[in-house]
Amino acid sequence: MTSYKEDRSSPSERPGRVVALCGGVGGAKLALGLETLLSSGQLTVAVNTGDDFEYLGLRISPDLDTVLYTLAGLSDQTRGWGRAGETWNFMAALQELGGESWFSLGDRDLALHVERTRRLLAGETLTAVMGEIAHRTGVKARILPMTEEPVRTIVHTADGELPFQQYFVKHACKPAVSEITFSGADDAVAHPALLDALAHPDLTAIVICPSNPYLSIDPILAVPGIRAALQRSVAPVIVVSPIVGGQAVKGPTAKIMTELGISVTSRSVAEHYRDLIDGLVIDHSDAAEANELAMPVQIARTLMQTADDKQRLAQAVLDFAQVLTDQAAASTRLRGSHR
Amino acid sequence: MTSYKEDRSSPSERPGRVVALCGGVGGAKLALGLETLLSSGQLTVAVNTGDDFEYLGLRISPDLDTVLYTLAGLSDQTRGWGRAGETWNFMAALQELGGESWFSLGDRDLALHVERTRRLLAGETLTAVMGEIAHRTGVKARILPMTEEPVRTIVHTADGELPFQQYFVKHACKPAVSEITFSGADDAVAHPALLDALAHPDLTAIVICPSNPYLSIDPILAVPGIRAALQRSVAPVIVVSPIVGGQAVKGPTAKIMTELGISVTSRSVAEHYRDLIDGLVIDHSDAAEANELAMPVQIARTLMQTADDKQRLAQAVLDFAQVLTDQAAASTRLRGSHR
Repeated sequence: MTSYKEDRSSPSERPGRVVALCGGVGGAKLALGLETLLSSGQLTVAVNTGDDFEYLGLRISPDLDTVLYTLAGLSDQTRGWGRAGETWNFMAALQELGGESWFSLGDRDLALHVERTRRLLAGETLTAVMGEIAHRTGVKARILPMTEEPVRTIVHTADGELPFQQYFVKHACKPAVSEITFSGADDAVAHPALLDALAHPDLTAIVICPSNPYLSIDPILAVPGIRAALQRSVAPVIVVSPIVGGQAVKGPTAKIMTELGISVTSRSVAEHYRDLIDGLVIDHSDAAEANELAMPVQIARTLMQTADDKQRLAQAVLDFAQVLTDQAAASTRLRGSHR
Repeated sequence: MTSYKEDRSSPSERPGRVVALCGGVGGAKLALGLETLLSSGQLTVAVNTGDDFEYLGLRISPDLDTVLYTLAGLSDQTRGWGRAGETWNFMAALQELGGESWFSLGDRDLALHVERTRRLLAGETLTAVMGEIAHRTGVKARILPMTEEPVRTIVHTADGELPFQQYFVKHACKPAVSEITFSGADDAVAHPALLDALAHPDLTAIVICPSNPYLSIDPILAVPGIRAALQRSVAPVIVVSPIVGGQAVKGPTAKIMTELGISVTSRSVAEHYRDLIDGLVIDHSDAAEANELAMPVQIARTLMQTADDKQRLAQAVLDFAQVLTDQAAASTRLRGSHR
């Protein structure tokens, strides 16, 4: 519908609070961009835990870890996951001993898994453990798991039902996907701090990061109360489309959309979130789609390669939120004057 | 009493079965020497588990691991513990995250702890886990924990009661020792396979390796049934003294002996084991002590620096066992002829 030009000459005023929902790599990049623009404590990042699993007796939280490493400046830029300057001697030794090795854990990365597992078994919450480690590693944002309860993303495929990591890593996303479900979601309780953040009067934007809508964002929205909290919020809900030029930037998004019979377009993304969002950010390469979308659209460079890319996209999102907020206020005034 | 010259010109016949009792480094070296002389399955190494502890949520068995790494040819020769070619990135990362780091675990070594912990928690026995890993890493000997039950060596010091690793690593053996006890030993059950090995009719020698008698061998002997099984055995029990030239080769042996009011001599070692052993192997440098010892003595080079040192000492021990066995047989015949 309406399309807003990116306007870097008049950035919005220092924004208030922001909540970002995200999965792993792509989402974490935008979260980092947002963090650079916001003061300490202003950004809450609610992270998918549907990919969490137990491996070698350790509790692994892939998306939480990617967000942590990205915000702490520890992530490997080339590989796209795990830590920079990583070594793999643990894994090599484990293979010699006959241990499981289908999921690679770097020697440095392992510290997080061992420490988290120990503390969880000692009765600490995932939130407390990740929060303390985030603080220690210099992260300014508040990183929250979507829930403390176990939710497990199950990918229904031609080869049977696969827990997410089995599908993603062990089967390298090869089996055709027919359905995705979130085991345990119905009984999970949305993170209270997330609900508080979503209800905060100073909240200026809720950002759904360019993560896989079906695998990374849907598990968050499947936790009872989160979808309603987004709908109830005073702040605009903005989605950054993970589709660029009719393709997904990373991961199996496009493949899954095709298998589920969904066209690989930002319009499909908009439709997926339709009763939930107030605006969509799409890439320049998909600008032609803007007019087909029945909602406000912001066109921006959504591919985030450099630090500058991340910050610029985050700024575009916050500016867009400001425009939507101003517009809603004007509309309210207008309705008021018609009375 | 009697002293036997080392005689390499006439090695004993291919020996039958041997049981070695040992702690960590020094004991493991002799176990390796014995393994090189014996066929697969002939050597059973019963290892102290009194030093075992839980750390970072992982089950650590320092002596079992040292024996495994030594027999598998994976141990670090220079450092004296852990694996060769080790890296320390896990530990460095753990420190950054605020985790405990007083006990260093190398990246490769960690694989053993993670794999063992996972399998123990899944219900496997320590024996099964270590046995399978030993087999995989090419170890010919049977490595047995002295018991499957938890026995914990407690060092009573001027600074209070310290679990062994706290005393040994965290306190660097500094506090003066007044007593050493073995928590849980009374309720522990000697490893059935060890009792079987000690009762085997083909057993030709029981070797108490040059480990710390108070910290490494006493916990094994504290497990009900093991001491009696040694006394009952048809094979000679031989101790290799850990004292060389009035000093301990490694670790806190000499310091502890002094603190406990025991003179740092092989005679003290002989007295410590007096109702249990049939012969003592002492170093050339302590040859003068041989005549003061009220038991058969073999003089050998007990310092094991090279692979050849280990094998030569092992051969001396086995030859000594043969001499003692022949002597006992002659004595029986003599007693028989006097009837």
